[in-house]
Amino acid sequence: MARTSQAHLDARRRQILDGARRAFTLNGFHATSMQDVLREVDLSAGAVYRYFRGKEEIIAAIAMETLGDVRTAFDAVLAADPTPPLDEILGRVLWQVGSTGEPGEARARARLILQVWSETLRNAELAAALERGFTEMAGAWQGLVESYQRSGRIRADIPAEQVARTLLGLVQGYLSQQALFDEVTPEVFQNGLRALMSAGAANVQ
Amino acid sequence: MARTSQAHLDARRRQILDGARRAFTLNGFHATSMQDVLREVDLSAGAVYRYFRGKEEIIAAIAMETLGDVRTAFDAVLAADPTPPLDEILGRVLWQVGSTGEPGEARARARLILQVWSETLRNAELAAALERGFTEMAGAWQGLVESYQRSGRIRADIPAEQVARTLLGLVQGYLSQQALFDEVTPEVFQNGLRALMSAGAANVQ
Repeated sequence: MARTSQAHLDARRRQILDGARRAFTLNGFHATSMQDVLREVDLSAGAVYRYFRGKEEIIAAIAMETLGDVRTAFDAVLAADPTPPLDEILGRVLWQVGSTGEPGEARARARLILQVWSETLRNAELAAALERGFTEMAGAWQGLVESYQRSGRIRADIPAEQVARTLLGLVQGYLSQQALFDEVTPEVFQNGLRALMSAGAANVQ
Repeated sequence: MARTSQAHLDARRRQILDGARRAFTLNGFHATSMQDVLREVDLSAGAVYRYFRGKEEIIAAIAMETLGDVRTAFDAVLAADPTPPLDEILGRVLWQVGSTGEPGEARARARLILQVWSETLRNAELAAALERGFTEMAGAWQGLVESYQRSGRIRADIPAEQVARTLLGLVQGYLSQQALFDEVTPEVFQNGLRALMSAGAANVQ
């Protein structure tokens, strides 16, 4: 019997995850049956169950993969040197998080992320993974805020951690709006933050 | 036969919604069966089905009620005169959205809101209601931003609508973090926004 190559195994796994992702994006994790997944993946049940024990395991794999993608997008943007103004950084992060080349893909991903959030409420393993990813991303933002505070570009009397959480909140708020409503783009939040950044002039103590 | 008073009907409806809310908060909309709801509500199936045709109808009622609460909280804060700085407004809104007196209640409500968001992805009626509520709240924020722009407290060259969406994004980001992770408080986002409001000094064109 021919030995199955790693490349072949990887491609099959990819095919399953991509198909499942399409199915879940359409109808949500819960309303999508394993039958729906199989139809979308276009493989036999036997072939799919060789890779995943069931729907829960596929959901977990997709969630972890999505978290990884988001994390990579963050790192790429935060590594820019010299660092642009915060509103520009936010805009780049939002583009990165959503952009995968396919039209409509940004919204599909946002909808999937929203479902992952909701899923963590009843899946402790996923919740722990999400919290880990969140903590890492908050740490990356915090490092950035600290460097802005050192160079006097942002007031230094507020803990960088709180500013980092607020910036992450903007990313989450953007993803929520993109998942729930049609018309939001990264520019909206980038412009919005730029405006907010002008609101402190009369307000800095 | 004694005529059932409206007060009695209302109290029963309240009892069902409160019990269902507790059950859903614990395990999510999907993992919670009608049996779980009945147990938590402590009424017979017959009594409950007199008010709601099933789980979906209870979920919709809870979602609409939660949206209404959030809307009321917004209006109360945005009506303040004179208007405080934006970071203070945000802090007050976040307190209002979460505060119902019960300890742990803010987080429970955030988790419920997250589930409502996720539920709208496959429930068109709920999605339309959420979009309506969102548009109204964005409109309220927009009016506020416009008045800040008129008085020169925030730059006027960015559409108020975009700033309003960004502020709403902060509220959504806060709710996400409160639902998903433990330790966030309104002060964190209030302080974070105050810091961001100082970041434009070198940046205003």
